[in-house]
Amino acid sequence: MRFRLAAAIAAIALAAPAIAQKAPDTPVQNRIIDQALNHSEVMQTAAHLTDSIGGRMTNSPQMREAERWTQQRFRDWGLSNVRADPFEFGRGWSIVSSSAVMTAPRRINLRAIPVAWTPPTDGTVSAQIVVAPMKEAEDFAQWRGKLSGKIVLVSHPGAGSEPERPAFRRLTSEDLAKLGDYEQPAFSETEIAKQLKQAAFEEQRDAFLKQEGALAWVRISPRDGGLLHGTGYSYQVGRTPALSGMEMAAEDYRRLARLALTATPPTLAISSDVRFHDEDTKAYNILADLPGSDPRAGYVMAGAHLDSWVAGDGAQDNAAGSAVVMEAARILATLGVHPKRTIRFALWNGEEQALLGSIAYVEKYLASRPELTDPAQAALSPYYTWRLRWPVTPKPGHRDLTAYFNIDNGSGKLRGIYAEGNVAAMPTLREWIAPFAGMGVTTVSPQPTEGTDHLFMSAVGIPAFQFIQDPLDYGSRIHHTNLDTYDHLKAEDLRQAALVLASLLLKAANADEPLPRMPVPARPAPADPFEYAKPGE
Amino acid sequence: MRFRLAAAIAAIALAAPAIAQKAPDTPVQNRIIDQALNHSEVMQTAAHLTDSIGGRMTNSPQMREAERWTQQRFRDWGLSNVRADPFEFGRGWSIVSSSAVMTAPRRINLRAIPVAWTPPTDGTVSAQIVVAPMKEAEDFAQWRGKLSGKIVLVSHPGAGSEPERPAFRRLTSEDLAKLGDYEQPAFSETEIAKQLKQAAFEEQRDAFLKQEGALAWVRISPRDGGLLHGTGYSYQVGRTPALSGMEMAAEDYRRLARLALTATPPTLAISSDVRFHDEDTKAYNILADLPGSDPRAGYVMAGAHLDSWVAGDGAQDNAAGSAVVMEAARILATLGVHPKRTIRFALWNGEEQALLGSIAYVEKYLASRPELTDPAQAALSPYYTWRLRWPVTPKPGHRDLTAYFNIDNGSGKLRGIYAEGNVAAMPTLREWIAPFAGMGVTTVSPQPTEGTDHLFMSAVGIPAFQFIQDPLDYGSRIHHTNLDTYDHLKAEDLRQAALVLASLLLKAANADEPLPRMPVPARPAPADPFEYAKPGE
Repeated sequence: MRFRLAAAIAAIALAAPAIAQKAPDTPVQNRIIDQALNHSEVMQTAAHLTDSIGGRMTNSPQMREAERWTQQRFRDWGLSNVRADPFEFGRGWSIVSSSAVMTAPRRINLRAIPVAWTPPTDGTVSAQIVVAPMKEAEDFAQWRGKLSGKIVLVSHPGAGSEPERPAFRRLTSEDLAKLGDYEQPAFSETEIAKQLKQAAFEEQRDAFLKQEGALAWVRISPRDGGLLHGTGYSYQVGRTPALSGMEMAAEDYRRLARLALTATPPTLAISSDVRFHDEDTKAYNILADLPGSDPRAGYVMAGAHLDSWVAGDGAQDNAAGSAVVMEAARILATLGVHPKRTIRFALWNGEEQALLGSIAYVEKYLASRPELTDPAQAALSPYYTWRLRWPVTPKPGHRDLTAYFNIDNGSGKLRGIYAEGNVAAMPTLREWIAPFAGMGVTTVSPQPTEGTDHLFMSAVGIPAFQFIQDPLDYGSRIHHTNLDTYDHLKAEDLRQAALVLASLLLKAANADEPLPRMPVPARPAPADPFEYAKPGE
Repeated sequence: MRFRLAAAIAAIALAAPAIAQKAPDTPVQNRIIDQALNHSEVMQTAAHLTDSIGGRMTNSPQMREAERWTQQRFRDWGLSNVRADPFEFGRGWSIVSSSAVMTAPRRINLRAIPVAWTPPTDGTVSAQIVVAPMKEAEDFAQWRGKLSGKIVLVSHPGAGSEPERPAFRRLTSEDLAKLGDYEQPAFSETEIAKQLKQAAFEEQRDAFLKQEGALAWVRISPRDGGLLHGTGYSYQVGRTPALSGMEMAAEDYRRLARLALTATPPTLAISSDVRFHDEDTKAYNILADLPGSDPRAGYVMAGAHLDSWVAGDGAQDNAAGSAVVMEAARILATLGVHPKRTIRFALWNGEEQALLGSIAYVEKYLASRPELTDPAQAALSPYYTWRLRWPVTPKPGHRDLTAYFNIDNGSGKLRGIYAEGNVAAMPTLREWIAPFAGMGVTTVSPQPTEGTDHLFMSAVGIPAFQFIQDPLDYGSRIHHTNLDTYDHLKAEDLRQAALVLASLLLKAANADEPLPRMPVPARPAPADPFEYAKPGE
């Protein structure tokens, strides 16, 4: 074989029995670096999760296989207490195959993918399209009586993009310096209400389309360049919509929309062969421990979500983070470290379904919030409502978790850490990252961040942190798209991330004192106590 | 209807009978601007060529329809002498449908497209893959005996891109200033020899694969991000290869290549339903005239190629240029101008097949070169050999063509003009573009350019020019890819280009003196008369 991969595979074969280099006079720091750089398995782990298993929607067959395989790997490496920790989720969903073809006025294969959680079509559905953009329930009236027997294009076609910024970039010193600014936390119930309204609208639209006799609907991809997502944010498990939905590449969607204005609107033939999986409605977080020597000292934890959406293979989001967490576990287990505190490794499930796995962990082990009494709110995703329930009541396990590190920002190397408002922890975090300045890890930012599995730990007062990572092309073209495959993972970056994470975990596990904590949060006072609601809110 | 396109269509309806505003006291310059900006049809023309007709491979059914429709439009607008000017080309080729699926170890729809000019598969071909990168005939030996019954992946998988420059850009003043530098012409027979060798290699590889019993071959897309081209540079018409070839998105190709290194190489099911068209082996340039008042004054001409490759709808390449040339014709015809010289509008065919249409025009009307005596060379595309035949003998029509303007650089607005080494013409060109400085047309560059239909006119001494255009995202993601659809055309840019082109044509047609010419080229002296061939050449 003539190419690079052959060498990589040869390296796996040689490294397979990976005997730990036990040289007691070599500092563990340096043995971590040696393991991470010269005996790395992070890319093999990532390759298996992406190439071999593929996209890992919660409770899909692929995610089940990932749950099985990752536990096996943890056991192979000698981790303890490896377990699948269940929480109630609901049915799974997966794509078997799908297609979309414009059959008239000419024949073109269209780039399209089923929208997650929508039901299958009954074989191939062939029908004329209607372009009927709808953004709110008030838009339904003008389409009443016009959608029967049609495939409905529900998005505004918009216009082509002009990408004037580089798709791929790394953080400059200036970028990092800006992250040093402290920002006061802003928790907006108004923003949550907006998101809720959007989710409710999609259910209303589904009901409207069904009632009007539409056959299926198509939305435009939120980005052009042929990218597809298929992300189904608005469909909660257990509230399966009535109609099949597909997301179409923007270029293909807009061509249909233009042709719909000519004499003969196009005809589509679409097929969405998707499956629901009801065999086991529980989802599982995968947990594995490296036991500590002092049971009263508590534990530290690193986590990344193992589940993904459906387009692509869930590589940067988040096989990358999962592989880094697993690699840190492998490194520390292989080196046979015996930390004071237990080090726990978590692969979350249901993150893409609204952080459900990490919420489940918090509720089971860390803190409780009152049940919702309003049945309308209780029916909503906890993502929207969880931070609205006061007070937070810590559980006995709350103080045991002394530091949590989350990784979920693509494949870029670590450049620092967000202290998430925990200003008192910043000097210690700076000390811990100091050895890695030459590897690009320089910055401790006081800023709070959102959107991934540390969020609801921070929200109950756990010292929970997220890393600053080089953005690469994660935000510009990879996040949730069909380009999110192993191709766009960066081996050097992931090796760096694993070695830094392993080192930080060991530092945190062996620290004399646990990290400073924030107070357990209580309902925040309004940002401006004298503010009147704006008109229209 | 709630969106922008509705307004556009309403505008067509209103403008349809487009009565020319004949105000004799209004300068023609301003009437051109009024027609181009307030009564534009350039986007409607482009939409029909792209959305309704689609990709226009020479002698495909789509190109036949484009030949018919463009002639009809020229006639509708009142052009004279509208004709399809034939040249011998050969069979056509078109895609009916195609698909590629990885069926094991898991099922994924792959992004792939037939490579132009390769034959169809016999239904669906299912087989295991072999990754067998081959770059030269010396590479065949190591794959002998290993390819029978396989689908062969013939490219090196390479690695993912890191696009660190913006995909979309316009020329800055600094960019334009650099274009002012004169570069001595460089004509390299060595470079041509290299291209020839590559073309010959692809034929050898086809024969080798056939002989080894391979079922089909797959190459990697030259760009990642899911882009597909399907361009078949190496297959000359009449030399149809034996095996079906497909081009696959880089991300999909590399996933296959990685999985091929695991225990069970993947199995593909590919189908390439393509058709050859032998009904009429002639291709046709479309020509239309606006007759001049002085038959002895000769003519000026604007041209753009109407044919395209197969991926996408041939929008920036080159429905854009074709629509601009047609719009300039519409504007001048609608205004009823009566120029001194005839203004000819040309829509070239076979440009993507190596400038064949414009070469045919040159050979028929402008100049001859000796026939090739070496049968091996005579069998090759004229693109490679045409400039190797000396001397050039001008035909009587040579002096009649006093200026040729070519447009083929995407959808960006005009920023100036390449004088193509014709330094004596620069003052006149500067004078002609001066009124458009406020529209961004500021630069006359002395530089020679290649790669499109002015090339072989320059090569026989015709004053033939190409425009400097804003690059937009043409080079970064549109050129020859499946993103080359109407979406990425810019209406404002194309309106500007049409009005500038119409004005320049009228200036050139009415000029007292024809533009200065270059001498008729003779075989160039070697750049360094004392240079020894480098080792290995």
